Amino acid sequence: MVDVNYRTEKDFLGEKKLPAQAYYGINTVRAIENFPISGVPIHPELITALADVKKAAALANMQLGLLPKSIGQVIVQAAEEVLNGQFRSEFIVDSIQGGAGTSINMNMNEVLANRALEHLGKVKGDYFYCNPNNHVNMSQSTNDAIPTAIRIASYRLAQELLSVFRQLVDGIKEKAKQFDSVIKMGRTHLQDAVPIRLGQEFGAYARVLSRDIARIERAAQGLLAINMGATAVGTGLNAPVEYMESVVALLKEQTGMPLAQADDLVDATQNTDAYMELSAALKVCAVNISKMCNDIRMMASGPKAGFNELLVPARQPGSSIMPGKVNPVMAEVMNQIAFQVMGNDHTICLACEAGQFELNVMVPVAANNLMHSIKILKNGMEVFHRNLIADLEANVERCKHYVDTSYGIITALNPHLGYDVASRLVKEAQKTGQSVKEIILEKGMLTEEQVALILDPYHMTSPGIAGEEFLLNQ
Amino acid sequence: MVDVNYRTEKDFLGEKKLPAQAYYGINTVRAIENFPISGVPIHPELITALADVKKAAALANMQLGLLPKSIGQVIVQAAEEVLNGQFRSEFIVDSIQGGAGTSINMNMNEVLANRALEHLGKVKGDYFYCNPNNHVNMSQSTNDAIPTAIRIASYRLAQELLSVFRQLVDGIKEKAKQFDSVIKMGRTHLQDAVPIRLGQEFGAYARVLSRDIARIERAAQGLLAINMGATAVGTGLNAPVEYMESVVALLKEQTGMPLAQADDLVDATQNTDAYMELSAALKVCAVNISKMCNDIRMMASGPKAGFNELLVPARQPGSSIMPGKVNPVMAEVMNQIAFQVMGNDHTICLACEAGQFELNVMVPVAANNLMHSIKILKNGMEVFHRNLIADLEANVERCKHYVDTSYGIITALNPHLGYDVASRLVKEAQKTGQSVKEIILEKGMLTEEQVALILDPYHMTSPGIAGEEFLLNQ
Amino acid sequence: MVDVNYRTEKDFLGEKKLPAQAYYGINTVRAIENFPISGVPIHPELITALADVKKAAALANMQLGLLPKSIGQVIVQAAEEVLNGQFRSEFIVDSIQGGAGTSINMNMNEVLANRALEHLGKVKGDYFYCNPNNHVNMSQSTNDAIPTAIRIASYRLAQELLSVFRQLVDGIKEKAKQFDSVIKMGRTHLQDAVPIRLGQEFGAYARVLSRDIARIERAAQGLLAINMGATAVGTGLNAPVEYMESVVALLKEQTGMPLAQADDLVDATQNTDAYMELSAALKVCAVNISKMCNDIRMMASGPKAGFNELLVPARQPGSSIMPGKVNPVMAEVMNQIAFQVMGNDHTICLACEAGQFELNVMVPVAANNLMHSIKILKNGMEVFHRNLIADLEANVERCKHYVDTSYGIITALNPHLGYDVASRLVKEAQKTGQSVKEIILEKGMLTEEQVALILDPYHMTSPGIAGEEFLLNQ
Amino acid sequence: MVDVNYRTEKDFLGEKKLPAQAYYGINTVRAIENFPISGVPIHPELITALADVKKAAALANMQLGLLPKSIGQVIVQAAEEVLNGQFRSEFIVDSIQGGAGTSINMNMNEVLANRALEHLGKVKGDYFYCNPNNHVNMSQSTNDAIPTAIRIASYRLAQELLSVFRQLVDGIKEKAKQFDSVIKMGRTHLQDAVPIRLGQEFGAYARVLSRDIARIERAAQGLLAINMGATAVGTGLNAPVEYMESVVALLKEQTGMPLAQADDLVDATQNTDAYMELSAALKVCAVNISKMCNDIRMMASGPKAGFNELLVPARQPGSSIMPGKVNPVMAEVMNQIAFQVMGNDHTICLACEAGQFELNVMVPVAANNLMHSIKILKNGMEVFHRNLIADLEANVERCKHYVDTSYGIITALNPHLGYDVASRLVKEAQKTGQSVKEIILEKGMLTEEQVALILDPYHMTSPGIAGEEFLLNQ
Repeated sequence: MVDVNYRTEKDFLGEKKLPAQAYYGINTVRAIENFPISGVPIHPELITALADVKKAAALANMQLGLLPKSIGQVIVQAAEEVLNGQFRSEFIVDSIQGGAGTSINMNMNEVLANRALEHLGKVKGDYFYCNPNNHVNMSQSTNDAIPTAIRIASYRLAQELLSVFRQLVDGIKEKAKQFDSVIKMGRTHLQDAVPIRLGQEFGAYARVLSRDIARIERAAQGLLAINMGATAVGTGLNAPVEYMESVVALLKEQTGMPLAQADDLVDATQNTDAYMELSAALKVCAVNISKMCNDIRMMASGPKAGFNELLVPARQPGSSIMPGKVNPVMAEVMNQIAFQVMGNDHTICLACEAGQFELNVMVPVAANNLMHSIKILKNGMEVFHRNLIADLEANVERCKHYVDTSYGIITALNPHLGYDVASRLVKEAQKTGQSVKEIILEKGMLTEEQVALILDPYHMTSPGIAGEEFLLNQ
Repeated sequence: MVDVNYRTEKDFLGEKKLPAQAYYGINTVRAIENFPISGVPIHPELITALADVKKAAALANMQLGLLPKSIGQVIVQAAEEVLNGQFRSEFIVDSIQGGAGTSINMNMNEVLANRALEHLGKVKGDYFYCNPNNHVNMSQSTNDAIPTAIRIASYRLAQELLSVFRQLVDGIKEKAKQFDSVIKMGRTHLQDAVPIRLGQEFGAYARVLSRDIARIERAAQGLLAINMGATAVGTGLNAPVEYMESVVALLKEQTGMPLAQADDLVDATQNTDAYMELSAALKVCAVNISKMCNDIRMMASGPKAGFNELLVPARQPGSSIMPGKVNPVMAEVMNQIAFQVMGNDHTICLACEAGQFELNVMVPVAANNLMHSIKILKNGMEVFHRNLIADLEANVERCKHYVDTSYGIITALNPHLGYDVASRLVKEAQKTGQSVKEIILEKGMLTEEQVALILDPYHMTSPGIAGEEFLLNQ
Repeated sequence: MVDVNYRTEKDFLGEKKLPAQAYYGINTVRAIENFPISGVPIHPELITALADVKKAAALANMQLGLLPKSIGQVIVQAAEEVLNGQFRSEFIVDSIQGGAGTSINMNMNEVLANRALEHLGKVKGDYFYCNPNNHVNMSQSTNDAIPTAIRIASYRLAQELLSVFRQLVDGIKEKAKQFDSVIKMGRTHLQDAVPIRLGQEFGAYARVLSRDIARIERAAQGLLAINMGATAVGTGLNAPVEYMESVVALLKEQTGMPLAQADDLVDATQNTDAYMELSAALKVCAVNISKMCNDIRMMASGPKAGFNELLVPARQPGSSIMPGKVNPVMAEVMNQIAFQVMGNDHTICLACEAGQFELNVMVPVAANNLMHSIKILKNGMEVFHRNLIADLEANVERCKHYVDTSYGIITALNPHLGYDVASRLVKEAQKTGQSVKEIILEKGMLTEEQVALILDPYHMTSPGIAGEEFLLNQ
Repeated sequence: MVDVNYRTEKDFLGEKKLPAQAYYGINTVRAIENFPISGVPIHPELITALADVKKAAALANMQLGLLPKSIGQVIVQAAEEVLNGQFRSEFIVDSIQGGAGTSINMNMNEVLANRALEHLGKVKGDYFYCNPNNHVNMSQSTNDAIPTAIRIASYRLAQELLSVFRQLVDGIKEKAKQFDSVIKMGRTHLQDAVPIRLGQEFGAYARVLSRDIARIERAAQGLLAINMGATAVGTGLNAPVEYMESVVALLKEQTGMPLAQADDLVDATQNTDAYMELSAALKVCAVNISKMCNDIRMMASGPKAGFNELLVPARQPGSSIMPGKVNPVMAEVMNQIAFQVMGNDHTICLACEAGQFELNVMVPVAANNLMHSIKILKNGMEVFHRNLIADLEANVERCKHYVDTSYGIITALNPHLGYDVASRLVKEAQKTGQSVKEIILEKGMLTEEQVALILDPYHMTSPGIAGEEFLLNQ
């Protein structure tokens, strides 16, 4: 007696029973049995990109007469349904999987084949009319379809990140303007150094992050060279030359992305440097952001027992026990995102190093980590901008107070008194509790006008101004 | 007009509207707004462990008369419901969050308070009768409750891992026995070296992995010292001494785990070396497993153009394009898990290094990565054992063939002929195509009996045997 | 005509001319040609340990009658000369080398053989009388001699490190005592939390570092299982059983170290987990030290625009431009050492993961990094202790000032007033500029005696005391 | 009584005795006491670059009339002597040092001052006539002089690396040509896949490494923006505007490098992304090289029990025990270099993340690791090219044999027979031991001509050719 709730499929390893309504097939079931690893599903953007690949391949195969129109059209239709967000619950293979992506590729091939069969009025599993391997995967291999999909998905995610990132940097630039006149003590070695403007500090953050944007933009370009047509090892076996050309053209048109076929398909099939290059750019960015967040958290430290130079917007009660406590939680979460991105980069490099000969079978874990890094950076930047940077305020009084009481301003006297004399003045100030200014005037070393000019903190922060004045006064 | 679908809660930062039926409260809503980062929820084991903490704290507070029984009992009841798996969809904060875990702690405090209110017949949000901070969080801080919960959760996960790991090592030991008589060429530098038995190789894998088990067991012990009672900074402010003692005792009893209060609560609150120690043990294990998987994949390479010494069970068709291809996918997924664990360790160390003063606010990302590493290692080992090791077979003939044709066996002649003479024989064999044995006999360098004895490959694999015979023959 | 300044040696690859006076031989010359990589020589402790190995092997071989006494005795003599520091300039191979250590092993074999030849009155290179392979390397392989030497060297270095480390921790403990009565603000999230004693903080540093000592001690034990007798692949081919036993016993006696033969020589020859375990312990230690140094540098920040809670001894003028500036350079160098150790750990794991079958040929780079990590940690700790910790002073007044002015102390009022009331008081204090204490008294919320008791900062830092008093006062 | 062997110098911390003949001074002596860490001296290229900086600064200061010609000229003369390789033994500070490079900067300032004093006919230490801070360091800070020197040194080293790297890639390209007609089995998952040409594999190595060259070239550009004139915190305090411009122009001319002043000196002084960017490019390169070396070592595995497709030139006897053994030591050393570069990258990122406010005081360890990575990559590539790639030979017969006997070629029959039929043929071939070709002919599935055409392995390796033929044959 047949159980109508189940159907049976077979491959060269044997048979498997699976839910009759399932769009996925036997390969997917095997993958589920083999890889119940992380519980983290395939990134939705990768599903989308792979559907794009399948659609373009079917169109190219039809154009060349390799794939009968009757079959090709329903495959295209099924792919478009997936692109529109349908059947997403049918993609059930784990994001960490052996087999270099064969499982996700076959999961897609099976879902599209079965949905196509429905469109043809056939029952699921009746692969004679539309076969996951022969028809949906025609002219393809996992080894070109999956890397191409990863590249498309990562590029799209990178563009989203860049858009958010540019807004964040604009937000920081606005702060640089807003804080331009806020004089504060510069710090080196966490020790009082010489005056600087808070706006200069935020300007520097904006600068370095702008370089990160450029690095990410450039690295993302490396994803645009795809290896469709490479098939199993890059030699293009079983893929007609005409197909190779048209599938890339179709994919380019379909996605609106400036895709191009890699110059050397053997290279493009085995090498994963594009993932590493993008991950490295993300990692450098993560380090720069982490450094900035560390600075912000220190400047916001206090309010009484800390620097108290920055007022971070209150986003949530900071403590379940300490009343009224507000913590820089948005900066803390960015630090953590940065650490995750740095760790992910490590995983990606390990996976890339483990490629062998014509293929890197460790690509699933590399792709996961890359897409995860992009995603959390993007999400983090969005809320960091909105919930912290946008409403950040300076504690102008406190910043000024530090400058007024610090010894560091004496550096400006070096050209006038020499390093050794200036050092002695600091020692004396520390001992007597007098200010440096008082001592100089008391000793008649400089006139009040000279002191006013040389020790003007704003002047000290403008490249060359102090020196210029000095020259004028000689 | 009141919208009955919503209720309003307030804290010292203002008000928030939230679904009337929600068990979580305003702190959770703020966390959701602040941290839409990874999409990965809090690990369920951490929810469980935190419910354990809340239950024990409520009991301890009741015992001391700090918490009225009427309130305490419904908190305990609510905690037990969470322990039983209820209300899990109410824990909605992201696993990457700023604030050192305050958000997940408050999510729990709020869920328990509102569920307790229900038990009291009060409406949600009416915190006068049961307050998330004053009652549920009584005598606690995020800074003791969360680290304690992380430690309990990680310890439990580690025990699950160890159980699976021991079975895996047993499986490898069985293979070591099964393969004990399979003579094969040993390889150093991937070059033919001298004979070894396949069983010896698997014995060595079992040995090193047994050390990994011991390392993980030992490192997990470090999680048992908890800091309940530390409150905000480890000084125990607001936690009565009696509470400190009883909460640990209750938690110990409740969990059945050999928990103990840390000797120094200031230390235990700020330091995270226990996480790093466990992660380091996992990382070393990951490296060892990766090395073993690399070996297995190489021994299974072929079938024609590779070593072909091991027959890996077919788990899924290996290719969407190449018919009949079977890949060592279970080993590949273990490699990838290993790379993820290694990258996670990096993230954990970065997070741990970023602790400052009395607290490490980066703990959420560290805890995530630690629990994720344990989980994927456990899941991976389970299927690796079942789907690969259990059915692994040796290609005995091929292994023997390599030994018979290799030059490496000549090493056994060193003590008899000297290194230089032996080297010349290899050169001659390579040139003439003769076997080493033939040349020796032809030249009359040794008798047939001597050669048979000295070049017996099994003898060569038994420590000292070759040498022993040599001594006997002097 | 013969050039007396040179001699010629040959091996199975051909001939090489080398300086007549050189103690090293043709293998060393080849290594120099092949590996002019880092310019960093072999660690002297590794040379020493390898000389130990060669001496013990020669003695064991003589005992068994394998090695003629006449030859063995001069090998032992030569080895002892190297142990005494002679001929060190003859070890010229680079510390990064291919070949799993064959080059350094042969460098040693050749130096000892040629020095032995001198003792025998023979000319260098006349290996008939004493041969680097047949005599000096008798019963050994690079694959047992080198790992054994690395283990001995690393263990010795680890003991030196531990000795310095224990002194550092003692120094920190002394500071914990000295600072026991210094009340200061505890910080979480870099925000003012509740009072703590500076001594408690240093106590916590001492605690976590004590665990690091224990971890390093334990990990170093793993080095004591050596694989002498394993020869090429762990099967002991060409090594008589009696030799296997006696060489370990001799080495144990000779070094005074609790060495033991590994239970499984195949395992011990191919696996490198002992290096990773020690490196992981060093890494965890590095992270803990880096965290402590970060704290110290922040506490020493200022003097005017920073925390200024700690007075770091002045070790050198801090700036080539800013007069009188003193930087926490000793803490900075420890941070950098920590970063190097963390990076080295990464290299070590990569190298260990790359082991294949019976041997890990990447051991040279792993051993280098391990020994380098131990060395710089040791050197760093020594000067960090002497030049920073020993003379560290607290700025008691400043620490007290923060406590007196901070709002964080209000946490102690939670059990009396509730979290929400306390939060409102903080808001009011921030607005009016009054102290929390003033407001409470003004409002008559508590009596002056109650306030004095509850807000006593020392009480707040003693576990349970605040709570205890509270209970007494009910 | 005066000891003529010593002189005494003092600074604001006190006095130090030092050898009378020493060119270094009191700051150097303090550094030696503070930082006896690694024993690794400052990279000579950094000394050179710093001398360049000092020379340019002195010239600029003279041009502006800030520095008297009489003093400036002898400083320039002294700097040129250092540039010519003199006085190198006077640079004695350790390469790992606290203080952000102040010690190496002062070591240089002192050596130049004392040498200048000699030229002036004064005694060493008589800094009235030429002062390390006031004259040699005039208009500079450690915080601009040292980053500028690091950038110049790293750029120069990177150019040397690139030159060697380009030759290596040319060498690989030559091999790609030489091996173009060598048909072999392609491998995916280490399993036999479909035929490929050895030349295609080497072509792919050359391609990916060419991208690495481009990445390194691009990253090196980031080093060209220098921050001379920034002085302490980037605001240019004490540096006249005219100096800022002329010092960069002079340095550009002097070095012949396309240097430019950074657009934002505050940014350029605090941020270290340029180091990370270059290190990341080196790391990606290291991963790619490691992958290639892994492939080469596997292809060279054997000779009997391995792939034996490549014949690696014998560079040294491979074993101290196994006669005639030759190992791929040059590939092994490249792997190890790659691991070191990857670990160094980790250290560099950790150091860069630890920057705070206006300066990154961890720069010494970052710079060390960067320069070390460049150096060992360069040295490694040089010998890897000369000692391995240049003389690499293919084992053409063995490669062909694998193709002839493998089942993977059946993939070419997919378009003709379908994936499922082809899969069954493989199973049958495996069972019967027949070749795929035989079965097809026996069954009459295709004619002999068709088989000859479709299964021609060379055709299979040419993109589209197989498909093309297929289309022609329809």
